[in-house]
Amino acid sequence: MLSWPEINIKIIIRVIGFLLMFEGIFMFFGIPIALYYSGDRCDPLIISGIICILSGLALSILTKNAKGKHIGKREGVIIVTTSWIIISLFGTLPFILSGTITSFTDAFFETVSGFTTTGATILTDIEVVPKGILFWRSITHWIGGMGIIVLSVAILPILGIGGMQLFVAEIPGPTLDKLHPRIAHTAKRLWGIYILLTFAETAFLMFGGMDLFDGLCHAFGTMATGGFSTQNTSIANYSPYIQYVITVFMIFAGTNFTLHYIALHGNILKVFKNDEYRAYIYLIAAVTIIITISLILKRNMNFEESFRESIFQTVSIITTTGYITADYLIWPGLLWLILFLMMFVGGCAGSTGGGIKVMRQLLLFKNSWIELKRLLHPNAIIPVKLNGKGVSQEIIFKVMAFFLIYIIIFAFGTMFMSLFGLDFETSIGATIATLGNIGPGLGDVGPVGNYAAIPAAGKWFLSFLMIIGRLELFTVLVLLSPAFWRR
Amino acid sequence: MLSWPEINIKIIIRVIGFLLMFEGIFMFFGIPIALYYSGDRCDPLIISGIICILSGLALSILTKNAKGKHIGKREGVIIVTTSWIIISLFGTLPFILSGTITSFTDAFFETVSGFTTTGATILTDIEVVPKGILFWRSITHWIGGMGIIVLSVAILPILGIGGMQLFVAEIPGPTLDKLHPRIAHTAKRLWGIYILLTFAETAFLMFGGMDLFDGLCHAFGTMATGGFSTQNTSIANYSPYIQYVITVFMIFAGTNFTLHYIALHGNILKVFKNDEYRAYIYLIAAVTIIITISLILKRNMNFEESFRESIFQTVSIITTTGYITADYLIWPGLLWLILFLMMFVGGCAGSTGGGIKVMRQLLLFKNSWIELKRLLHPNAIIPVKLNGKGVSQEIIFKVMAFFLIYIIIFAFGTMFMSLFGLDFETSIGATIATLGNIGPGLGDVGPVGNYAAIPAAGKWFLSFLMIIGRLELFTVLVLLSPAFWRR
Repeated sequence: MLSWPEINIKIIIRVIGFLLMFEGIFMFFGIPIALYYSGDRCDPLIISGIICILSGLALSILTKNAKGKHIGKREGVIIVTTSWIIISLFGTLPFILSGTITSFTDAFFETVSGFTTTGATILTDIEVVPKGILFWRSITHWIGGMGIIVLSVAILPILGIGGMQLFVAEIPGPTLDKLHPRIAHTAKRLWGIYILLTFAETAFLMFGGMDLFDGLCHAFGTMATGGFSTQNTSIANYSPYIQYVITVFMIFAGTNFTLHYIALHGNILKVFKNDEYRAYIYLIAAVTIIITISLILKRNMNFEESFRESIFQTVSIITTTGYITADYLIWPGLLWLILFLMMFVGGCAGSTGGGIKVMRQLLLFKNSWIELKRLLHPNAIIPVKLNGKGVSQEIIFKVMAFFLIYIIIFAFGTMFMSLFGLDFETSIGATIATLGNIGPGLGDVGPVGNYAAIPAAGKWFLSFLMIIGRLELFTVLVLLSPAFWRR
Repeated sequence: MLSWPEINIKIIIRVIGFLLMFEGIFMFFGIPIALYYSGDRCDPLIISGIICILSGLALSILTKNAKGKHIGKREGVIIVTTSWIIISLFGTLPFILSGTITSFTDAFFETVSGFTTTGATILTDIEVVPKGILFWRSITHWIGGMGIIVLSVAILPILGIGGMQLFVAEIPGPTLDKLHPRIAHTAKRLWGIYILLTFAETAFLMFGGMDLFDGLCHAFGTMATGGFSTQNTSIANYSPYIQYVITVFMIFAGTNFTLHYIALHGNILKVFKNDEYRAYIYLIAAVTIIITISLILKRNMNFEESFRESIFQTVSIITTTGYITADYLIWPGLLWLILFLMMFVGGCAGSTGGGIKVMRQLLLFKNSWIELKRLLHPNAIIPVKLNGKGVSQEIIFKVMAFFLIYIIIFAFGTMFMSLFGLDFETSIGATIATLGNIGPGLGDVGPVGNYAAIPAAGKWFLSFLMIIGRLELFTVLVLLSPAFWRR
């Protein structure tokens, strides 16, 4: 059993201070956008940025003597959860100072939705918002995506949480400031790929007629699997070319970034041998085919249009991006039921996607099948295989426990939301769309709706679901366990 | 690894032959009812009974040389699944010969619904059906209940399936005809309790004004957690006294019958120390209180009426009985959402109730909580405790796998039902109400609806769900595994 040292609060504050400075700098990136699109004031961004940097600096100076101190497992968990909350609190400043969002609840919901790469919005008219502020809104996605990459590759495996465990052969000791060089190196390489793909997508979008602002915002929203658009109609009014570009990059964003690294080094065959990737691609293909055929039969649409609508919505939901080109709620019942089930899948482990993750679902399905074999041969040890190797019962156990807790939170979340008098579909839709970091759900919060009408308490609760979902449940839930705080 | 002998088909046929004779005898029990309620013909019952007995006799004579032969694990699995199907096929005869149900699909659905103690009906006017036939309909429940008791106590533990595993300290060898005396003895004792409770309830119901026919039918429906009534309005038009009697006996029927045995031997304190029983009672109490308060506040009903409506519907759904005194679909959204979640709970292990079972849900909740502790102490072994004893990880693993497969079947079942153009609520309602052997679900198949309008293919599929749910999934699913049929 590990012994738990006292919690080192100073080091926690120090890391958060550093992150706040980082956030402040990113706020300044909206200034040239605000200046170029001349109508906009840029003082809300300047003031917000300065507040963040000064606050960060103050925290950093206050905790100077904590420099280089050991960061334990408990500190790691607290840092991850509190930083997502505090970064979101400060991230509301541009919205509030610019008067874009007047209610603090709404501003917090929108910012959490950004940093968790959910993309659920309370804005009813996006196009009237100053471009500098919209740029900040999209940047929250992009920062969130960066955070998730480092979280899933470097931090969660150390904490023993998350699907990437299976990729990390050797888990280094619980020292964050002396990060295992290999892990730190990996994180940097994956960030490189993330940045590369973001700029590649921006270029492709601009080639299709978007300006730099729209191109960057949509690339941020895509690569982070976020879903904030600069248009009220999301991607629906863009050209087929742009819809296809975004579809392809959503698929990239939902892929394990380690596989991109492998592919960039010429080992494309190895990518296609990866079980999770194959399951992900097959699932997208299967759902797209079913929906395409149904739409052709039921709505007399031509093939290309049906295929495009179908693959866009399918990929957008499986990757938990949440961009929209069609209102899937008016599709035949079976189709949106399939999309609803896809909301429980999520992206691949090690991607920026949210949800339960393809990896976990794959292991659960494989294990369910093998369980029948085990019944016949109760004394035989029949392991679930992934990428040709047996997966330990212990990992399957953890994956099942994760799934169950996910379902429990989903069920209770739906019950809680229905307390506000929301109808059944809106309650389940809002719960899964936020817990799975998707964005649009069902009912009133469906593809053509938004979260503006949800009561304030509901918005706070959904913000909590976004954070708990984004941080793979356990990172947050462990804080609720009395054992965590015991000496 | 166990070696599998060739499947002994003769012994399977022999057991089924025996069960058919048993079924035929039970059909005759409706004859005095038909005669007493003079308007009825009793020839459909006589002919059906003779067909069953002669068929059974023929099968028995044909397989005479299989007498006393060894029944292996594979034979056991095949016997359980096929007998439920064949008994249901023959059980349709009284409905068809009397002209009560003209479609074979409908008759099969109704009979499967009876034998699986589901209680889902395709009859739109129950009160016009001859009493002899209604009596047979209720007897199918009662036979089903007897079958389940022997299944859960004696057969499933041998096959390594089902929640009762935790109760059976020593699992005897896979020999059904040389059943371990202790297990055979236990089954007989539990049948004794089942019969005792059935007649006790009949007496209480007759004391409240029911005649022998109605009393027996409702006692059969209650003790088997079935739900077939003799009235179109189920229990709604009966007196409060009768509603309370049925509530109490539904609670008994959803309790592990082993606990009744213990209680009858004066050890009532031991019953209340049983973790599953306590969870079951606490859950009923909690849901009843929430619903009672909500009904008082929202509908201005008096306390007694609210409490009675609340506890009746709660108990009816948790125990998977499916009797109704109020249309819960017109209750506030949160309340029927709670009842919908309760459809996934089910009765206690070793009761006649269907569903996932309280035991499994309890283990899942406990394990989810402990999983957080395990995260903090990854090297410590922290077992889930039940009745003061640690439960092995292996059993928790099996329980989680069961739950997952249940959810997978539920999800795919809902998708399949929505193919028939049913709305979302009807699709999920029909799926869980049949898979969980409850009866009434949501939407068109809700408490005031019935299954008459479901298309034929949907009825066959739902019949399959009733059987698979009743036989704890694995008993049926294992037959679909190629490994089962391999030499």
